[in-house]
Amino acid sequence: MPELRKDPVVGRWVIIASDRSRRPNDFNGSRPEMSNGGKPCPFCVGNEDKTPPEILAYRLPGSAPNAPGWLTRVVPNKFPALQIEGGLDRRGEGLYDRMNGIGAHEVIIETTEHTKELSELPEEQIENVLWAFRDRVVDLKNDSRFRYILIFKNHGESAGASLAHGHTQLIATPIIPKVVTEELDGSLQHYRMKERCVFCDMIDQELRDGRRLVMENEHFVSFEPFAPRFPFETWLLPKNHVSAFEDSQRSEFAALARALKDTLQRISRALNRPHYNFLIHSAPCRDSRLDYYHWHIEIIPKLTKVAGFEWGSGFYINPTAPEEAAQYLREIEL
Amino acid sequence: MPELRKDPVVGRWVIIASDRSRRPNDFNGSRPEMSNGGKPCPFCVGNEDKTPPEILAYRLPGSAPNAPGWLTRVVPNKFPALQIEGGLDRRGEGLYDRMNGIGAHEVIIETTEHTKELSELPEEQIENVLWAFRDRVVDLKNDSRFRYILIFKNHGESAGASLAHGHTQLIATPIIPKVVTEELDGSLQHYRMKERCVFCDMIDQELRDGRRLVMENEHFVSFEPFAPRFPFETWLLPKNHVSAFEDSQRSEFAALARALKDTLQRISRALNRPHYNFLIHSAPCRDSRLDYYHWHIEIIPKLTKVAGFEWGSGFYINPTAPEEAAQYLREIEL
Repeated sequence: MPELRKDPVVGRWVIIASDRSRRPNDFNGSRPEMSNGGKPCPFCVGNEDKTPPEILAYRLPGSAPNAPGWLTRVVPNKFPALQIEGGLDRRGEGLYDRMNGIGAHEVIIETTEHTKELSELPEEQIENVLWAFRDRVVDLKNDSRFRYILIFKNHGESAGASLAHGHTQLIATPIIPKVVTEELDGSLQHYRMKERCVFCDMIDQELRDGRRLVMENEHFVSFEPFAPRFPFETWLLPKNHVSAFEDSQRSEFAALARALKDTLQRISRALNRPHYNFLIHSAPCRDSRLDYYHWHIEIIPKLTKVAGFEWGSGFYINPTAPEEAAQYLREIEL
Repeated sequence: MPELRKDPVVGRWVIIASDRSRRPNDFNGSRPEMSNGGKPCPFCVGNEDKTPPEILAYRLPGSAPNAPGWLTRVVPNKFPALQIEGGLDRRGEGLYDRMNGIGAHEVIIETTEHTKELSELPEEQIENVLWAFRDRVVDLKNDSRFRYILIFKNHGESAGASLAHGHTQLIATPIIPKVVTEELDGSLQHYRMKERCVFCDMIDQELRDGRRLVMENEHFVSFEPFAPRFPFETWLLPKNHVSAFEDSQRSEFAALARALKDTLQRISRALNRPHYNFLIHSAPCRDSRLDYYHWHIEIIPKLTKVAGFEWGSGFYINPTAPEEAAQYLREIEL
């Protein structure tokens, strides 16, 4: 059973995944799984029995579960960071706090096509992927043990992916993660001073200014943030105030699929198909409809190394001004 | 001139190092500088003119500055992340805040021997390096523009090093970095409840428990923290309460040199000379003698990749329990 432990100084929780326990010799060199050790890809059509049974699938009429005929498929992660069964069992040990590593860890298989990257899929297929995100979040929110659901993508080995076939992951956690708490606290502080959402203010300023803008359509906008940690870090936000991703209007999903494809394609072409992470930051499970928080996607191409100064300070050195990065991205011909 | 910019949501400052500006094509592949492009190593004896003029050096009697005869040498970073000359010029732009990228960025050259890693140096030479850290901090604290001085080491390419010759870096910043503020805030909260330093409490519990202990001597102890972000993350702390590294007693420097050598050697042998970062967390420039904060060294071997979940949540998945890691390290024969 994985365990959650809390740092007594800064209050940061970590997952000690002892089921995946790695000894000193296991850390030599990079992980070999990206090619899946020559074994057949478990996310390809026909290999449905290589994954745990599906939780959700959008399928062609008449096709059976866990068999070909799917368009988008959601399965439990075969090597979950957290375990779905059990109680939290919070307990102390002197100064320290721990609880059982309870949570959900799922994989959204984006497409049947082994070699296609998310931005290369047709808009309708990207929309399917987004609906699968939404349907899983709505379902998992019924589990009262979960406080937060993070959707994230590791694309490419240096972004932490272990399988090449296009997929996104979802982890539901029994605590609200630190990075999200910081955003919630900061947004609330702004709201208390201004009675406005800080993200709405940011969108307004970016649209008027234009120097950091990447693209916009009727419902969404993407831009390079004013103070990005990483070169070509890009944020994608709904223009209208919505605090939780899953509360978006149906009509917004099509616009989001277009905006995401457009933005990812620009990044892919400008940087020659970089490895990247994206993650969806949305309101916690029990806090939908917040006036002060605004859901968004953060896209982080893996271009630089994070070194001692960054680890020690939380202070990032970014060698590309966001105004320059935005100009490169805007100039890409799609 | 580099610029400091503040994220309007979470208040995180970043350095936009436009002087080192990197365009999309500059990010292809890993950086070639580790071999210094075949050019002579600027940190080797005889190449003193390949660095900016030295700020400090411990030298053999009779040797001249910027010439051979040094044991440990401190020079300005040739490609500084922050610039030493100028005023801060804090200014706003709508929602956003920025200031000039003012700071000091120095390199401590640890040894004349090109191939020797810090843990391989004799104890007296490690002590020289520690005294050089201290002398530079004491001097830089006289500059009222600086609020924090971070000492950190990038060892090996995957830890962000760009030159192989053993060196540590120092960056003085005009703001207190986020990670340090979090530690200060968390420690103060514990102090307000208990009227005790949380780090002193932790040392006490770790020495009594023993499962996470790596080594101890008369003045220092190293252990795997209870909730480590990374496998084999190791902390080294003074047993007596001191909030600032530079306020350590003279007699403690020799003990620290021994403790650091011992701890780094164990990590090096257990993990087959891993790339690693270490960093010194100490009280801010204007806050020495804090009852609630305790200076320490954090050592982070680079064994795992940081992926989307970690970036999105600040929630780390660690595949090696600290009790197991500590046992491996204790069992190493030195």
